[in-house]
Amino acid sequence: MPDATAARAVRAALDAKTKPRGSLGRIEDLARRIAAIRGSAELAPLRAAIVVAAADHGVATEGVSAYPPEVTAQMVANFARGGAAINVLARRAGAELVVVDAGTLAPCREPGVRVLRAGAGTANFVAEPAMSPRQCALCIESGIALARELGDGGVGIVGLGEMGIGNSTSAAAITAALLDREPREVCGRGTGVDDEQLARKVGVVGAALRRHQGREPLEVLAAVGGFEIAFLTGVALGAAGQRLVVLLDGFIATSAALVATALEPNARHAMIAAHLSPEPGHALALESLELRPLLDLGMRLGEGTGAALALPIVQSALAIVAEMATFADAGVSDAGG
Amino acid sequence: MPDATAARAVRAALDAKTKPRGSLGRIEDLARRIAAIRGSAELAPLRAAIVVAAADHGVATEGVSAYPPEVTAQMVANFARGGAAINVLARRAGAELVVVDAGTLAPCREPGVRVLRAGAGTANFVAEPAMSPRQCALCIESGIALARELGDGGVGIVGLGEMGIGNSTSAAAITAALLDREPREVCGRGTGVDDEQLARKVGVVGAALRRHQGREPLEVLAAVGGFEIAFLTGVALGAAGQRLVVLLDGFIATSAALVATALEPNARHAMIAAHLSPEPGHALALESLELRPLLDLGMRLGEGTGAALALPIVQSALAIVAEMATFADAGVSDAGG
Repeated sequence: MPDATAARAVRAALDAKTKPRGSLGRIEDLARRIAAIRGSAELAPLRAAIVVAAADHGVATEGVSAYPPEVTAQMVANFARGGAAINVLARRAGAELVVVDAGTLAPCREPGVRVLRAGAGTANFVAEPAMSPRQCALCIESGIALARELGDGGVGIVGLGEMGIGNSTSAAAITAALLDREPREVCGRGTGVDDEQLARKVGVVGAALRRHQGREPLEVLAAVGGFEIAFLTGVALGAAGQRLVVLLDGFIATSAALVATALEPNARHAMIAAHLSPEPGHALALESLELRPLLDLGMRLGEGTGAALALPIVQSALAIVAEMATFADAGVSDAGG
Repeated sequence: MPDATAARAVRAALDAKTKPRGSLGRIEDLARRIAAIRGSAELAPLRAAIVVAAADHGVATEGVSAYPPEVTAQMVANFARGGAAINVLARRAGAELVVVDAGTLAPCREPGVRVLRAGAGTANFVAEPAMSPRQCALCIESGIALARELGDGGVGIVGLGEMGIGNSTSAAAITAALLDREPREVCGRGTGVDDEQLARKVGVVGAALRRHQGREPLEVLAAVGGFEIAFLTGVALGAAGQRLVVLLDGFIATSAALVATALEPNARHAMIAAHLSPEPGHALALESLELRPLLDLGMRLGEGTGAALALPIVQSALAIVAEMATFADAGVSDAGG
């Protein structure tokens, strides 16, 4: 549960700082929210990790992505070697990058990748459930265990990122099922499909929702989810349970947050939305989580790139609480108010 | 003039990187814009400085601010000692802070403050011109000289920040005069005035515009400007002339950018808008400069705090160009397009 006392104490601390009250706007809201998450008003910049979970999707065979499935494993290798956008942005933001193979088609053999595979890609969820209940539970448990390990190691902020060709179709199906929305309301162009592919994607999501009637969150996740989404659901649950800040990336990471919140409503209080993706389902998902994104820069890459770009803003909010002088310290006249 | 060839070369470089084309959204636009400013496609994170210019305003005696004028010099001392919000945020962003006394009422004697005073505060512009043409020219020349010094010292990005009790009234008068707007369209609550003070502020701006009929940019600046605003006008002109990136903070810094652009229309091409202030005149000023802010976080503090908070985004855009692998380097299949 959020710690309202810690949040109030941070508000009082911010009101004593040498600036007009509230003049840092949402930076001040952010500091209060993090105090509530952490259960402490003693804030300072936190160790941060970005988890990038990767997996393949049987539904990619339906032609819903601009890229072939082998790109998932190729990108995992790129993450391991440091050449992807998330490597660059995580380095700039001072975040540790944790790359997880949650189930790509071909296993990645690069050093530095956590191998927590639930299978060689999911099944095509138009025809059958994407994964078994057992695979789904395994992914969630692995995610919870990773969050615990990170928290035990002193990490205070966990960013959620992902890679998986076809996974915006899976996120769209999850979002439509959990928020009771039409496929066309939640399907976008992902990494860049054309009109014909977009129409196919809407059709695929509609067919999947008709085939899989269960609406319990774990049923939805197993039916139309992905291994990386199930894994991130576990990371979100485990991190929230330990009072870590959960920094959501885009549409796919937020679909995991939707499942986590459906399973444990309090998990929502640990979350911060890094940015708004142009995927139409993302705004709907954030609205249902009552989260307002920090950035709106038209980013639609995934990998945790939005989380990495928002991280310096989050750390700055913490540094303001830790480092700014008070009116009394600095001998500055206060207008009161 | 912006270098369109360099911008095109950066677009080609970004299109070869291991990500769907355009998927980093406005981060990619930012990289192209900086290439055009710098006149080079060889981009990498740049040395950054934030200039915080401070001065007092005779118009503060009209009761248009929630704070008394002595706060300007008190805050300059706070900047010099490292306790203000801009100190914290500039440190986090890795920017050098350059504090300038352009004319506070009482001179600040703290070490580390550049003393480039044009006077002990401006005159009350409701009754007479805020400054003489000679004072105005002196401030602009000092600002140009500082920009040249920073550029010669290897700085590539200059953030514009300010401090001056009453200066949102000055910025409102400049914005109304240069954009031909009504006082009520450009006046906001600044650092937190109440309804009565806001009505007084609108009245003060209206009276000043009726009194000072000249509409030439230098006439407007001398009539209703401030020493810090004139100084920042010079910094913007000098920085743009040397192909430095000019990172605008909020409403007051942007009013200096309006004057600079009115004097030299090409200066606009060197500018990046860090954030959107809630001051109603800010959106109008950015629109006229054809700039879209990177952040919209309800910040209304000034000091360059918005510029400091946006700086990591700017540096990240540069790092993406410098550090990401290409499809060919990384052996990742490209969808083309």
